[in-house]
Amino acid sequence: MNHTTAEQVPEPTEPLKYLSKKEAAVIEKELLNEYRFGHQQLIEIWGHACAHAITKAFPLSAFSKKQPTVLVICGPEQNGSVGLVCARHLRIFEYEPTIFYPKRTQNTMYQDFTTQCEKMDIPFLSYLPTEVQLINDAYNIVIDAILGTESDHGEEQEPFTSILTTLKQVKIPMASVDVPSGWDADKANADGITPEVLISLNAPKKCAKGFSGKHFLAGRFLPYDIQKKFDLNLPEFPGTDSLVEL
Amino acid sequence: MNHTTAEQVPEPTEPLKYLSKKEAAVIEKELLNEYRFGHQQLIEIWGHACAHAITKAFPLSAFSKKQPTVLVICGPEQNGSVGLVCARHLRIFEYEPTIFYPKRTQNTMYQDFTTQCEKMDIPFLSYLPTEVQLINDAYNIVIDAILGTESDHGEEQEPFTSILTTLKQVKIPMASVDVPSGWDADKANADGITPEVLISLNAPKKCAKGFSGKHFLAGRFLPYDIQKKFDLNLPEFPGTDSLVEL
Repeated sequence: MNHTTAEQVPEPTEPLKYLSKKEAAVIEKELLNEYRFGHQQLIEIWGHACAHAITKAFPLSAFSKKQPTVLVICGPEQNGSVGLVCARHLRIFEYEPTIFYPKRTQNTMYQDFTTQCEKMDIPFLSYLPTEVQLINDAYNIVIDAILGTESDHGEEQEPFTSILTTLKQVKIPMASVDVPSGWDADKANADGITPEVLISLNAPKKCAKGFSGKHFLAGRFLPYDIQKKFDLNLPEFPGTDSLVEL
Repeated sequence: MNHTTAEQVPEPTEPLKYLSKKEAAVIEKELLNEYRFGHQQLIEIWGHACAHAITKAFPLSAFSKKQPTVLVICGPEQNGSVGLVCARHLRIFEYEPTIFYPKRTQNTMYQDFTTQCEKMDIPFLSYLPTEVQLINDAYNIVIDAILGTESDHGEEQEPFTSILTTLKQVKIPMASVDVPSGWDADKANADGITPEVLISLNAPKKCAKGFSGKHFLAGRFLPYDIQKKFDLNLPEFPGTDSLVEL
């Protein structure tokens, strides 16, 4: 028999690491290439954990509106796909998500994530009202899954500059996935949107350092060797939860 | 705006459906072809839910052995891959899984799931001791992820007939994934292995009807239309749990 005793992971004594955009990209590349995780698998894990985080930050019982409506705004890349998976699991958790997904791509995997939502009867908006009051009235919260670590602050293009302008005026709470859209992963944007909740994937990014809202770390699957190699010093996750509040 | 109010799912009043092998196959095909779920995504969802079930049935605090060792036996097909994912998440939940995976395939996705475990430092056994006492002494429980709905009772071939012979003599508790190996999905095998725990995926199979052990339903993601179409009458899942005890 070839049984070796697995090492217990010691509680981190060093402070939690905040990743630069570059470090986040290196870790993701390593997960895909060395550890052989699949994109589909990672997006499913992250999206599920995001939905879980939303249930913690905004439990159904806390909504003032009659219907537990949630607006999920999805960008064209990976961050948007995490939003699609999040919306699907929120539906399973008995929320009523509506998706706005203005710029779709030819990526088959992203198209499949879209179909999964459509076949779950999750409505898709054909446009985002510019009259902000309509959004405030129709939804309890907005989930911002527009742009993640891949975006450089300032390079946003239409329709996303208009969407961000709208979101800056919205009065209902907002939760951002990984990086608040319009921020740079390396630095907060004081003139940008101000989410109440931030859900960091894998590890927080540098821009989250001074974040004063509710901050969750989501996605409990990182191999211990990756955690060690990049000195992530992740906190302990409670029970079998896929997320932890920082 | 195109927002429609999503229907709330009523509590089932009809009894839970037990699927025939054929029905289980039809549902899986529909999930893949119509709903555009991916194999990788489904196996990740199921494996994670199985690990979650193991933490409920066998909490770390309940183990009598000093190390929280778990032996996961994986078959060559999908059931075995669910076992690999389960082992990986058990490691994240601070169990100490060891995998026995005697018959690997050329399937790239299954190979990737294997690499993910290897890179998590989960040990793989090169053979299963025929001396049953060695298994009883080394592990707290055995997880049987050998054969699922795809297998016909009686068609098992080596090395699986020998493994099942060994497992029948094992004294530590056993948990089976979806269908206890050596059983037919449509009918329990009185002469087969007798797991203490059964983790049904999507919906229970006919063979589980008289099951007297702890029975979990794992994988909380089935679209409501599939649940309705096949009259599954699934019970309510507690909170955000990905499983429910039946």
